[in-house]
Amino acid sequence: MKSFGKFLQSGDWKGEKHVPVIHAPEKVESGEAFELRITVGDAIGHPNTLEHHIKWFKVFFHGEGDKFPVELTNFTFDAHGELDTTTDYVGATQVKLPKTGTLYAMSYCNIHGVWENTMDITVE
Amino acid sequence: MKSFGKFLQSGDWKGEKHVPVIHAPEKVESGEAFELRITVGDAIGHPNTLEHHIKWFKVFFHGEGDKFPVELTNFTFDAHGELDTTTDYVGATQVKLPKTGTLYAMSYCNIHGVWENTMDITVE
Amino acid sequence: MKSFGKFLQSGDWKGEKHVPVIHAPEKVESGEAFELRITVGDAIGHPNTLEHHIKWFKVFFHGEGDKFPVELTNFTFDAHGELDTTTDYVGATQVKLPKTGTLYAMSYCNIHGVWENTMDITVE
Amino acid sequence: MKSFGKFLQSGDWKGEKHVPVIHAPEKVESGEAFELRITVGDAIGHPNTLEHHIKWFKVFFHGEGDKFPVELTNFTFDAHGELDTTTDYVGATQVKLPKTGTLYAMSYCNIHGVWENTMDITVE
Ligand SMILES: [Fe+3]
Ligand SMILES: [Fe+3]
Ligand SMILES: [Fe+3]
Ligand SMILES: [Fe+3]
Repeated sequence: MKSFGKFLQSGDWKGEKHVPVIHAPEKVESGEAFELRITVGDAIGHPNTLEHHIKWFKVFFHGEGDKFPVELTNFTFDAHGELDTTTDYVGATQVKLPKTGTLYAMSYCNIHGVWENTMDITVE
Repeated sequence: MKSFGKFLQSGDWKGEKHVPVIHAPEKVESGEAFELRITVGDAIGHPNTLEHHIKWFKVFFHGEGDKFPVELTNFTFDAHGELDTTTDYVGATQVKLPKTGTLYAMSYCNIHGVWENTMDITVE
Repeated sequence: MKSFGKFLQSGDWKGEKHVPVIHAPEKVESGEAFELRITVGDAIGHPNTLEHHIKWFKVFFHGEGDKFPVELTNFTFDAHGELDTTTDYVGATQVKLPKTGTLYAMSYCNIHGVWENTMDITVE
Repeated sequence: MKSFGKFLQSGDWKGEKHVPVIHAPEKVESGEAFELRITVGDAIGHPNTLEHHIKWFKVFFHGEGDKFPVELTNFTFDAHGELDTTTDYVGATQVKLPKTGTLYAMSYCNIHGVWENTMDITVE
C-alpha cells in the first residue's frame, strides 16, 4: 500500500535549508519542564514570500518501548509579507517528558513538501 | 536515519476504526471543483471523550510525476464532551486538482497515534 | 483596554464576499448529530491565489445561559494555486449540541482580516 | 448583530491565570527580527490535564493606521498528560514588523473560553 511516509524528506540541515533543527537538552529529568525549539534556516535561510514559504512545524515524541507517538505541538508561520510583515521560522515551547525517547519534527514548504528531523533525548 | 514514516499506521477501515476513509469521485475533470470528504467511523465508531478522541485530519495531494505533495486541508475536532458538546469525525471541503494523482489522508488519535489512507483519483 | 473584538467584521454575505455563511438546521434534537457547513462565496466568489486568499474558518458554539463558548472546529484552506491545486472555501463537519444556543463562525483573509457570522439554533 | 467579540475576556495576568502574557521588546527597528513569546501562567499556573487545559494561542499584529490586522502565528499545546507527557503554555517565534502598532494574543481554555491581551510596540 502507498504511504505518505515516502514524502518525508530529510538531510543535513547544514546543507539542506528545509530540514528543521531541533534544539533541546540532550538529557533532562523525568517530568522536568524544558524548552523545545525548532528552527529552519540556522545555516541557510529559506525564502519567506507569498509564493514560497514554510507554513508550519509539527512535533511528536516517541517514548522508548511505547507503541504510539504523542503529538506535542504545532507552530504556524502565517505572515509571508502581507503589509511587509513576516513570521520567521522559529517555534519554541516547553514540554515535560516521562522517559527516554525521540523527538520528531516536521516542516512543510508550500513548494518543496514535507521535511523531518529527529533527536534522541535521555530522560532520567 | 529514523523517520516518522514508520508511525503511519494503516489497515482496512472496515475492521480498524482509526483509519480515515476518503470519499471523493474516482474521476473528475481538470480544474473542476469536487467535494472531498474524510471520515472516521463509517464501520466502527471511535470514542469521543476528553480521555480518548481523534484530534485532526490532514490531507495532501500528490500529482503523478510530481516531486512533492501539496497540502490541501486540515480539519480539527475540538469538542470532546465539553458542556456535552462534541465534534464528530467528519471533515469535508472542496478542491480543484490539475492532474491524475493520489490523495493522502491522515488522522491522529490522542491515544493510538497517526493513521493514514490513500485514494487514487483520475483527472481528465 | 484594546480588544481584538473590534476587528471582527461582518455584513450581509450576499453583498460582502468575506462573510462566512453557516449552513445548519434551524432546529435539531439534543445530542443528535447534524452536518455543519461553512462557506465563503455563495453569492460572490473570493480570489484564491498565493497573494490573496482565505486561510481558515474557526467555529464556536455558545449555549444559552452558558458563561463560555466551546470551540467546535477549524478548517484550513492550504492550496492556493501551488501546482495548479486549490482548496476552495467550504468546510463541513458533524456536531452534537446539548441545548439551544448560537453558532459563531469566523473566516480570515490574508489581505482583508477577520470576518464573522452567527446563527441561532434551537435544540429540543 | 451578535459578535464573538463579547467572549474575548481579559484582565490582569497577575490575578487571572488565563490571560496570555506577551513578551516582546517595547521598541524594535523596522524589519528587524525579534523574539515574540507568549505565555500563560507566569504568576499563577493553569491546569494541564485532559479534562482542563489551554489548547492554543493565536497572535495578530495591527499596524497603526492600517485597516486590517495580519495573523502572525498559532501555537497549539497538544499533550495534556497522554503517556505522562505535557506541552506547557509557552509559545515563541520570531517576527519582523514594518511599523509601530499593537500585538494581540488570544488563548483558549477548553473549559473557560477565550482570553486576550495586547501590547503596543514601537517600530522605528
Ligand atoms: Fe522551499
Ligand atoms: Fe483511539
Ligand atoms: Fe479578501
Ligand atoms: Fe481554565
